Amino acid sequence: MVENKKYHVAVVGATGAVGEKMIETLADRNFPIETLTLLSSKRSAGKRVRFQDKEIIVQEATPESFEGVDIALFSAGGSISKSLAPEAVKRGAVVVDNTSAYRMDPDVPLVVPEVNEGDLANHNGIIANPNCSTIQMVAALEPIRNLYGLNRVIVSTYQAVSGAGNPANDELRAQSEAYLNGEDMKAEILPVGGDEHHYPIAFNALPQIDKFQENGYTFEEMKMINETKKIMHMNELPVAATCVRLPFFTSHAESVYIEVETDNVTVEALKEAVANAPGLVLEDDPSNQVYPTPLNATGKRDVFVGRIRKDLDQTRGFHMWVVSDNLLKGAAWNSVQIAESLVQNQWLSK
Amino acid sequence: MVENKKYHVAVVGATGAVGEKMIETLADRNFPIETLTLLSSKRSAGKRVRFQDKEIIVQEATPESFEGVDIALFSAGGSISKSLAPEAVKRGAVVVDNTSAYRMDPDVPLVVPEVNEGDLANHNGIIANPNCSTIQMVAALEPIRNLYGLNRVIVSTYQAVSGAGNPANDELRAQSEAYLNGEDMKAEILPVGGDEHHYPIAFNALPQIDKFQENGYTFEEMKMINETKKIMHMNELPVAATCVRLPFFTSHAESVYIEVETDNVTVEALKEAVANAPGLVLEDDPSNQVYPTPLNATGKRDVFVGRIRKDLDQTRGFHMWVVSDNLLKGAAWNSVQIAESLVQNQWLSK
Repeated sequence: MVENKKYHVAVVGATGAVGEKMIETLADRNFPIETLTLLSSKRSAGKRVRFQDKEIIVQEATPESFEGVDIALFSAGGSISKSLAPEAVKRGAVVVDNTSAYRMDPDVPLVVPEVNEGDLANHNGIIANPNCSTIQMVAALEPIRNLYGLNRVIVSTYQAVSGAGNPANDELRAQSEAYLNGEDMKAEILPVGGDEHHYPIAFNALPQIDKFQENGYTFEEMKMINETKKIMHMNELPVAATCVRLPFFTSHAESVYIEVETDNVTVEALKEAVANAPGLVLEDDPSNQVYPTPLNATGKRDVFVGRIRKDLDQTRGFHMWVVSDNLLKGAAWNSVQIAESLVQNQWLSK
Repeated sequence: MVENKKYHVAVVGATGAVGEKMIETLADRNFPIETLTLLSSKRSAGKRVRFQDKEIIVQEATPESFEGVDIALFSAGGSISKSLAPEAVKRGAVVVDNTSAYRMDPDVPLVVPEVNEGDLANHNGIIANPNCSTIQMVAALEPIRNLYGLNRVIVSTYQAVSGAGNPANDELRAQSEAYLNGEDMKAEILPVGGDEHHYPIAFNALPQIDKFQENGYTFEEMKMINETKKIMHMNELPVAATCVRLPFFTSHAESVYIEVETDNVTVEALKEAVANAPGLVLEDDPSNQVYPTPLNATGKRDVFVGRIRKDLDQTRGFHMWVVSDNLLKGAAWNSVQIAESLVQNQWLSK
């Protein structure tokens, strides 16, 4: 870090599933913190949270909370980001926002450091952290695109419930216990907190993440499609997505079909590209049953890639299986990584 | 049924997950049974099984068990089918085999009645019941292919543990209970009983169903690819599959991407094709959160289709979500349906 300078960091949504991981990750990474301010809704204010050897009392987030803050990590829902991120910027903070509020704003960089770190240089105070399912996919695609180009992406996701927050975790646990005891399952949160109908997720699969749009796609699917194009600077890249919620707690998996731009690319070449890329771990040895799984990826910051194989009909087509902890690389770690890059590159002040 | 004739039916593998459903389905369908012979391995022989108002004692399957049998439904593993199906045929029975033993044999029809019932007319004593994940997919594709042609299929599956039999169900239950109690999970069966390594399936996803082939695909994936071409009589159809085991008990789901042969096909036209097809139920109303799920499909004989939508880049591309009970349409019901067709069309004796 530059000249051992330390920063005043704020975490907004400090008691949520992602906020908790942000605080953990700041500690794990030994981020140069002078002061850590933890903010939340009025309801959660007053809670005490451990950070390194201190206990910090969570405060209600208000515009004034950001006085003196250098970096504010937001993960408290889109409406909070919409109202408070500009207030933080007005007071001199750089905001890394983990909601969808600003992601498609042309003035806001949408960044996965392994893919488009340079976009951070052009920020205007707010930087958007992409959707969890998008981050791990573009991280896996980037080294392949770099070497062999990319003509097409079709993804089907296998997403963990923690993407819908701690209450969704509690719901999966309660429903699982009820089902195993032969009792009725209560569904009050998934597939989408704010939508009309709720269905059990335990021992089930729900092909709905976020609400539906007019075109029959969910917002989650459109996030994957639109954010991928923006992050990779490939507005014309055909991307298709089907997003499915499944009964596990953490780490999303993705079945990804791609077509590269180059002829005669081999599976070995793609494996090498993945193995040499920052932030990626190749777990791909079918003969020894080695491949990524959500349980194994949980708690780790990397993106795990396996089952790379050639399509049997399309000469430029390949299939792969991508798994990562949705709360870490999919959210908290990517946000802290952005903050680290801002500090290291002296991009905090403009 | 023809002239009220009744038949001597045998079920081989009567105490397995599929065998149990075969017996239930024969009863539900009021299949014209004169005698029902229940067969199993030596280990399970002697068990008593309820059928309608009788109790039947399961016997050990031997070549002589098939004397006088008209129709034998096999679901006791490939090696049993290989050794005993020819013995049954030799004694005059027609075999409907639910294992992979004969599926790709050019002399053996591989049949999903909604797709290629006519192939039954050419049987030589053995008829193969396709793989569970293949059956529901081709049933959903058939009405679309009929009206608009089919140029391409890419599928990612979400498969229930019961596809690996009753012991896999027990394993999911035991692991789920252990996990929820904070205990270690024991993995002894999944992903594949006969493979070297076992991993927990509870609160996890395993991208391996059946063993791996040299080309990096699993046998399950190759079954979907090869069986689809054979059933649909489309040897040149590009089909790609990624098969994933998930922590639910029954009913497989599939995220299917297709390209049709015809321009200007609408989502409404595909919905109509599905809604009018035998054995299919359209559950597709995103604005009211209506779509198929494994829990809702379980115990039903139909194939449920939803989330039909147009690809945003490929003008002939569409996505859909297909769910069906893997033990019923995926196995027991498709076998009984074949038996019904043999009887109704007088195709039993040659």
